[in-house]
Amino acid sequence: MTRELSALQKARLSYQPKLPKVLKNGIRGLSVEFGGPTESVADADDIKEIFPNSYGKPIATFKTGSTDISNEPVNVGVILSGGQAPGGHNVIAGIFDSLKNANQNNRLYGFLGGPSGIINGKYQEITADFLAEYRNTGGFDIIGSGRTKLETEDQFKDTWNNCQNLNISAIVVIGGDDSNTNAAMLAEYFLSKNTGIKVIGVPKTIDGDLKNEQIEISFGFDTATKTYSELIGNIERDANSAKKYWHFIKLMGRSASHVTIECALQTHPNITLISEEVAINKTSLAEVVNYMTDIIVKRSHEGKNFGVAVIPEGLIEFIPEMKSMISNLNDTLALIEDDADYVKLCNQEDKFKYIESKLEKQNAEIFASLPKSIQAQLLADRDPHGNVQVSKIETEKLLIEMIQAKLVEMKAAGEYKGKFAAQPHFFGYEGRCAAPSNFDADYCYSLGYNAFALAHFGLSGYISSVRNLTKPADEWIAGGVPLTMMMNMEKRHGALKPVIQKALVELDGPVFEYLKKNREKWALEDHYIFTGPIQYYGPPEIADVTTKTIQLERT
Amino acid sequence: MTRELSALQKARLSYQPKLPKVLKNGIRGLSVEFGGPTESVADADDIKEIFPNSYGKPIATFKTGSTDISNEPVNVGVILSGGQAPGGHNVIAGIFDSLKNANQNNRLYGFLGGPSGIINGKYQEITADFLAEYRNTGGFDIIGSGRTKLETEDQFKDTWNNCQNLNISAIVVIGGDDSNTNAAMLAEYFLSKNTGIKVIGVPKTIDGDLKNEQIEISFGFDTATKTYSELIGNIERDANSAKKYWHFIKLMGRSASHVTIECALQTHPNITLISEEVAINKTSLAEVVNYMTDIIVKRSHEGKNFGVAVIPEGLIEFIPEMKSMISNLNDTLALIEDDADYVKLCNQEDKFKYIESKLEKQNAEIFASLPKSIQAQLLADRDPHGNVQVSKIETEKLLIEMIQAKLVEMKAAGEYKGKFAAQPHFFGYEGRCAAPSNFDADYCYSLGYNAFALAHFGLSGYISSVRNLTKPADEWIAGGVPLTMMMNMEKRHGALKPVIQKALVELDGPVFEYLKKNREKWALEDHYIFTGPIQYYGPPEIADVTTKTIQLERT
Repeated sequence: MTRELSALQKARLSYQPKLPKVLKNGIRGLSVEFGGPTESVADADDIKEIFPNSYGKPIATFKTGSTDISNEPVNVGVILSGGQAPGGHNVIAGIFDSLKNANQNNRLYGFLGGPSGIINGKYQEITADFLAEYRNTGGFDIIGSGRTKLETEDQFKDTWNNCQNLNISAIVVIGGDDSNTNAAMLAEYFLSKNTGIKVIGVPKTIDGDLKNEQIEISFGFDTATKTYSELIGNIERDANSAKKYWHFIKLMGRSASHVTIECALQTHPNITLISEEVAINKTSLAEVVNYMTDIIVKRSHEGKNFGVAVIPEGLIEFIPEMKSMISNLNDTLALIEDDADYVKLCNQEDKFKYIESKLEKQNAEIFASLPKSIQAQLLADRDPHGNVQVSKIETEKLLIEMIQAKLVEMKAAGEYKGKFAAQPHFFGYEGRCAAPSNFDADYCYSLGYNAFALAHFGLSGYISSVRNLTKPADEWIAGGVPLTMMMNMEKRHGALKPVIQKALVELDGPVFEYLKKNREKWALEDHYIFTGPIQYYGPPEIADVTTKTIQLERT
Repeated sequence: MTRELSALQKARLSYQPKLPKVLKNGIRGLSVEFGGPTESVADADDIKEIFPNSYGKPIATFKTGSTDISNEPVNVGVILSGGQAPGGHNVIAGIFDSLKNANQNNRLYGFLGGPSGIINGKYQEITADFLAEYRNTGGFDIIGSGRTKLETEDQFKDTWNNCQNLNISAIVVIGGDDSNTNAAMLAEYFLSKNTGIKVIGVPKTIDGDLKNEQIEISFGFDTATKTYSELIGNIERDANSAKKYWHFIKLMGRSASHVTIECALQTHPNITLISEEVAINKTSLAEVVNYMTDIIVKRSHEGKNFGVAVIPEGLIEFIPEMKSMISNLNDTLALIEDDADYVKLCNQEDKFKYIESKLEKQNAEIFASLPKSIQAQLLADRDPHGNVQVSKIETEKLLIEMIQAKLVEMKAAGEYKGKFAAQPHFFGYEGRCAAPSNFDADYCYSLGYNAFALAHFGLSGYISSVRNLTKPADEWIAGGVPLTMMMNMEKRHGALKPVIQKALVELDGPVFEYLKKNREKWALEDHYIFTGPIQYYGPPEIADVTTKTIQLERT
């Protein structure tokens, strides 16, 4: 079936992504320069022991030059791993154009549905025609993605078999920190078996938590945060026009608050919560509520019964006392489920009281402080093991209800005379598959083009690295960083494992500093910024500039 | 305080909106042509009786020419009425540039906070500098809006006084159908008192329900639907990539489904519900659930446990049996509130059962068919008069829960083997204050420019009309339509009132026909279209084209 396309879709298909100058010469015009041996960010001995064949490799940087590397036809495999991020299709387009540039007879195979595709040998050859309708588009629908972890010996064996069947000599893994950790393990496995199969990783995730000295940002972060900022700005303008509502906007990002802080820097909301700050300060839920209520009350004194608050999805999980209450609650529920005294209670309130009586004092207080609706939700939404699912808690609504309750008290006490009406929002799916901004389209295409180049030069266990991103694409630096360099040992399910270190928001970094310096002003005065929708045309400062986060971190 | 602006905000401030050719010559280069006397759409005699001085005026069309109309300095007042719509600021910019073009000494006063501003004499003069930072921006924050109805004799008197104080000879009312009805009444009042004050209306509302033969569309509809369609398309791409979720997307628009059907035509979701169709067919809630479930099951048979459904905000209120159940429930609750047998029930389920026993049979069945959470919500969310607030029902979640329940039954009966996981969304505030698209920026500016021209030519009780909108702005036709022509008599709070007829989705019109012809195909195959974000730059087919609705209705 021929698919109907919007005018913009048609136009974007023919967009030619920008490449770093060095890659414009094509594969034959490249030479590679190596730095000295590298060390892992921590736990060097353990990492070295686990990665005897791939540890400590030097950083590689491409230069204009020429190479006498054999140009025999090769086949390359690619997989998309984990959640969608804008630009994934362009990484594949970059790999394709790069390998065809090296040799028209080179072939690219896309494994279907993520890592399980390479384990089960489910694939589809990516041809020029097939690829044509995916260039510069959002989504991962070209070959699909999946969350299977590629980590066991058996999986590696199957992967090896399937590569042999297709005569594949290089695999590109497009994924987040875990997927790249697995890529490193697969690379080590292939080296240990002298398979000659290279493994290259590509940094993907809208969460922006896969970055470090060498990786300035993961792809998709730019487009996703610009899409959310468009919406936040529109809502700010609405709040400032209607002057009637407080909008509580939860933003995707469970394990780090990069998305929330980037959007805050782009739109200047009245309240910005950052999970990492809450965790470090051991902030209690009551303190979070007080902080927000204080701003709401101060604004109401100036006749402003409206505002905008942005909240990271993972907030609750970063509040220490909530963690402890939840685990205590899980144990307690397991105990009293068959307790006749509990079961016979017909009234929910009585159930809550009974549970409180069984919880440790401090946890009982926290539980009691929660709105009834959330208490009910905690008892209702249990996972198959009967555990409360903290991730199911609708943080934005929890905060609204607790603030509401507090304001009622304050009104009774004559400390508050304002009106409080709130609208909850959650933005996540709206941005994960947006068509990539020019920046992500260019960056992803370059990462893919560069990924094949690394494999072509025989490198394995590297992540594709394109740097100097605050400059025009022409000046970007292309090369590779050994995956082991980004690793350390962390506890996972009780056992120490080698993993790529997640980048959390640094509370002493320039991005958080900027928020800290301005948030009081943004809270009371209105400094809303309306970024508007992503523009693909127009002057570079509108169409090509990337995030505030990179600009603050890299300039 | 000098406000920080995004790059796009800065660029848009200097965008010069396009005008119809005829208006480009300026006010002195205009002549006006009149058609024959007009009749109201219905109830001519009643309308004529209520509007003796303004009834039956001819349609006015501007032509290139010249006028000997006095060019003495005049003052004009403007008010924004009701909910925000993208482009309101440009209407004001159009009025300003138009009146300054007529005479540099003309002045524009903006009344603050909507109709109440003109009643209480709260205003602010709109100067070139003040206006400069609002050109081509979204929101109504320039002078604010309000929902006060301007309809009583006393309010008219106060308005007259405030106009005299500022020596205002024309008022422009920017609002929806009700606000323009009030504008017509104010115009009639001013004529009956020989005040010489002209009143001109401007058609505003993102709902798109203020349109007719002469008004092709209200402003804001284009930008809002493009913004929602961007998000729906992104979510479709996500659904099609993750293949994991059904997304239920509720769209703003309580009284008509124009927004939903326009977005459906732009994005081709799998399911589109239209309130007007549900009302005509007297569709029951169960039938709506069955219709959706049927599509979900059919898709799951093809291994597609994902999809996208769009739902108009007002759906529930259009389901006849729900209306009757709600009113029966209101009466019943009023009766049993102090009923000891009811009050003593400690268990919610028992309360529900008791209420069912008191409802009329058919209504009891409907109530019983609702998910517990919705039953609880119905009893909890009551308005000050103790009435259940149907508008508070979260339609998208109601449908998800009922479908979930049905699928569980079908699974048990072996009729369904799929997985159903759903994500609810509600889009409204995200689009009401978006920066106007080029179309809305041009259209609104033209409406404003044209509104002053109408007053300048001595017309009153007219609505600013810019037509031929599917053609380039150059070919747009500018003029005025007598407000009485758009009116009929309708029951409001028990009494017959003259009102501008609301435009509902016409089930025999080309827009609905298009949906009907395609929806089955869209339901099972995937014809998702990804419109992407509004573009302000680039080729006209991307940056300037307006909605499918207008294109189907006018070409």
